[in-house]
Amino acid sequence: MTSQKIKEGDYVLIYLNPRKTYLVKVEAGKNFHTHKGFIKFDDLIGKGYGCTVKSNLDVKFVALKPLLRDYIMKSVRRTQINYPKDIALIVMFSGIGPGSCVVEAGTGTGALTTALAHYVQPKGKVYSYEIREEFLKVAEKNLKRAGLAEFVELKKGDVTAGIEEKDVDAVILDLATPWLVVPHAYDALKPCGTIVSFSPTIDQVVKTVEALKENGFVDIRTVECLMRQMQVERGKTRPQTLMTGHTGYITFARKATKTN
Amino acid sequence: MTSQKIKEGDYVLIYLNPRKTYLVKVEAGKNFHTHKGFIKFDDLIGKGYGCTVKSNLDVKFVALKPLLRDYIMKSVRRTQINYPKDIALIVMFSGIGPGSCVVEAGTGTGALTTALAHYVQPKGKVYSYEIREEFLKVAEKNLKRAGLAEFVELKKGDVTAGIEEKDVDAVILDLATPWLVVPHAYDALKPCGTIVSFSPTIDQVVKTVEALKENGFVDIRTVECLMRQMQVERGKTRPQTLMTGHTGYITFARKATKTN
Amino acid sequence: MTSQKIKEGDYVLIYLNPRKTYLVKVEAGKNFHTHKGFIKFDDLIGKGYGCTVKSNLDVKFVALKPLLRDYIMKSVRRTQINYPKDIALIVMFSGIGPGSCVVEAGTGTGALTTALAHYVQPKGKVYSYEIREEFLKVAEKNLKRAGLAEFVELKKGDVTAGIEEKDVDAVILDLATPWLVVPHAYDALKPCGTIVSFSPTIDQVVKTVEALKENGFVDIRTVECLMRQMQVERGKTRPQTLMTGHTGYITFARKATKTN
Amino acid sequence: MTSQKIKEGDYVLIYLNPRKTYLVKVEAGKNFHTHKGFIKFDDLIGKGYGCTVKSNLDVKFVALKPLLRDYIMKSVRRTQINYPKDIALIVMFSGIGPGSCVVEAGTGTGALTTALAHYVQPKGKVYSYEIREEFLKVAEKNLKRAGLAEFVELKKGDVTAGIEEKDVDAVILDLATPWLVVPHAYDALKPCGTIVSFSPTIDQVVKTVEALKENGFVDIRTVECLMRQMQVERGKTRPQTLMTGHTGYITFARKATKTN
Repeated sequence: MTSQKIKEGDYVLIYLNPRKTYLVKVEAGKNFHTHKGFIKFDDLIGKGYGCTVKSNLDVKFVALKPLLRDYIMKSVRRTQINYPKDIALIVMFSGIGPGSCVVEAGTGTGALTTALAHYVQPKGKVYSYEIREEFLKVAEKNLKRAGLAEFVELKKGDVTAGIEEKDVDAVILDLATPWLVVPHAYDALKPCGTIVSFSPTIDQVVKTVEALKENGFVDIRTVECLMRQMQVERGKTRPQTLMTGHTGYITFARKATKTN
Repeated sequence: MTSQKIKEGDYVLIYLNPRKTYLVKVEAGKNFHTHKGFIKFDDLIGKGYGCTVKSNLDVKFVALKPLLRDYIMKSVRRTQINYPKDIALIVMFSGIGPGSCVVEAGTGTGALTTALAHYVQPKGKVYSYEIREEFLKVAEKNLKRAGLAEFVELKKGDVTAGIEEKDVDAVILDLATPWLVVPHAYDALKPCGTIVSFSPTIDQVVKTVEALKENGFVDIRTVECLMRQMQVERGKTRPQTLMTGHTGYITFARKATKTN
Repeated sequence: MTSQKIKEGDYVLIYLNPRKTYLVKVEAGKNFHTHKGFIKFDDLIGKGYGCTVKSNLDVKFVALKPLLRDYIMKSVRRTQINYPKDIALIVMFSGIGPGSCVVEAGTGTGALTTALAHYVQPKGKVYSYEIREEFLKVAEKNLKRAGLAEFVELKKGDVTAGIEEKDVDAVILDLATPWLVVPHAYDALKPCGTIVSFSPTIDQVVKTVEALKENGFVDIRTVECLMRQMQVERGKTRPQTLMTGHTGYITFARKATKTN
Repeated sequence: MTSQKIKEGDYVLIYLNPRKTYLVKVEAGKNFHTHKGFIKFDDLIGKGYGCTVKSNLDVKFVALKPLLRDYIMKSVRRTQINYPKDIALIVMFSGIGPGSCVVEAGTGTGALTTALAHYVQPKGKVYSYEIREEFLKVAEKNLKRAGLAEFVELKKGDVTAGIEEKDVDAVILDLATPWLVVPHAYDALKPCGTIVSFSPTIDQVVKTVEALKENGFVDIRTVECLMRQMQVERGKTRPQTLMTGHTGYITFARKATKTN
């Protein structure tokens, strides 16, 4: 079996249990500290991904190769959180895939950007607008960590003032006033192109849906998604007590060609 | 704007409203009948996607280019339905993307297969096992319609007896006894590879989670996802009255390397 | 065991399975027809409640004594449906119990009225306002069937124009414009009295909450309740596929005394 | 308006906001301390319920008359929590009302007992079994505080060994092994009497439903209830981020008479 080896500079997901994982960069000669003791990176280098490693307190960890979902979960910090469930639905509704050309706004910390880049690579492109300089830096760092920076053009700019790209496959919005972007999205999209907007409040949804109706979009739908974790153990199986009750609403539409 | 033209042999999504859409093949000289009159395919050929067309009863339809989600929704007929929300989450959890190598079982009508092929193309591959000959035919037809058949190898065979592929990125299961496939999935997966199983009953989940624990998988999680549609109209906004209360549970895990 | 006997004129719940029950009045000499054959009422008269009876097609039915929930479920016909789950929460939030004095509007078919009467009897009273004459007749019939008519005063009148009662324990609203009733509810309630409003749309909720804040109410809360049925069978246990996704939002508040 | 006055020894709900309330006993000459300063009970005595009172830091509180829901919420401490939503549904499904005779087990801290007593008073009775002496003391205190102790007989005993009462209207179970009580419940119930069981795990539900089927119960249903709070503010309305994802399943059935 051709097992991939861990090497200096790799990002590794150090796994203790489903609630305790760490996304860390492997640095020779250094240690990684956890509440269950420290791990020597030198113990990892040259080992195969998926191997078990012990801390100095003899606690076992697994060194996993990070997945898209790990990069997403570890990207979100300071802004509005796009949970993996919402990102998964946004990607599905948008219809994008390898080779797609996508406009996104705002970039935020780049969690959604990372997912879009992951799915459109290697020939597609994500143009991601963000007005706040400090977020662009965080997003760039997160995209590099996930090895996806080359598929994204981070753009400092106000998407409510216009979108420079044309004939794009999808416009994905996660910002405070999506309805202001709707006319620009129409111009930027190719015919049958999709727009997907993520908003936490009902009021944003209503304004966005109205703008979509007025601007030539069809097949307008709004959904919300509730995800619940299960505790699975024979004789004790039950849904988990705590749950995220709301992240946001996802609104979808497609561009119809205007008839004269 | 470079608008793509509709041509003979294309699959087009004829859109009346979000609840009434038709996925049809364009055939010159023929008509497509709806409860709101018929549409002449000749009125579509040569027009740009996204155009509006009228039936003989003067009702307007939009001719849309089908998205992944449309192919999924129109694929499901006779078997267990994997709703787009579940497919979206399965894809996200699996970590797959362009270039991934995936084993799936069972194929069913190919709804999930279509999504997997869409995301791993053009260099990835889906190996999809199905024991029932008649489903393989339906799945093949659905994959061809979506233009994704070349990225899938449909295999008639019983996956509970073994998986032929090695070093795959993910094993995706939607069958009655996923726990019987878990040891084979472990052997087929590369280290850190993922397994994702979709099951309608709690009992299937419990058995699958037990098999995962016994077979060297870590980061085991089970979730269920509830999606609710909103009726959005200023002054009358509310969730829709009817909702799908349950499709199935999604169980995820990653392969850790066994230590001796 | 002192088993209660079924007698002429009683309302009996004829039970085939949880989805197929009939609330019928026992009439000597007559038959009750179902899709599984007919039952002779004479076979029931004199038997104990809870007994099994066979139709002429030899299908077994159970003759049950109706519960509050049965009267509620069989009352709802033509108007907005208050599901038992919502009625249960409305009653709980309102804080009412035996002896409480309650104002309700609108009466509708009397489903909620029936529940309120059930819980405030025998010394409490429900004053129920309804503007549509035809509903008052239906409600009266439903209340009589449940044996609770004497605890309710049905009033033909427009509650948005004012409430005649004073010092009531609770005002319960299920009508299109609850915010118009809020000032009248304040006047009608005794200090610390409660108001509970049931509304299907978000827009109604927002207007009602604003009116509550402006009119001296405190402890304002809005909730929605999703109830899901389970299919329970060893080896096949799962939530039911279909579910009611939305009935309405429940808004609750308490009257604080205005300070000068 | 006849406003009820606050007096020495009363329990008052000191309200700051929907998330910060205190259920306290009024004691002349003493103060009640909060994180927003202290309130002199002497400032409350003789005032009407619903009045506003200021702490020494000039923060306003409202002195509310406690409702059933307040007693329930403040009763739950050490054991399994029965949220008001579950208690509301249990009461509704049970069909009980003023005058009903109910057996409950286990008592726990008396939250559900308090609700049952509230609804069956003044002529009904609750017989509540509990095996753990220390809980009976807590429950007695909570029932006295709510003024409902006289309608409850707290019984130290193991309900899985048998129920002493006969011809009761309902048996309500919230304990680890409800299926062991099912045969005793059948004997204790009058014909058409109801049993309602609350259990956190699926496994408990399956065993209980099996016992119900084997012991002559009909109309067996299991539901779960999800309650979500809304943040209501014009322009910012949305469901709350955090939510209780699971408390327990509610199983309901009715006693049919066994036929020979």
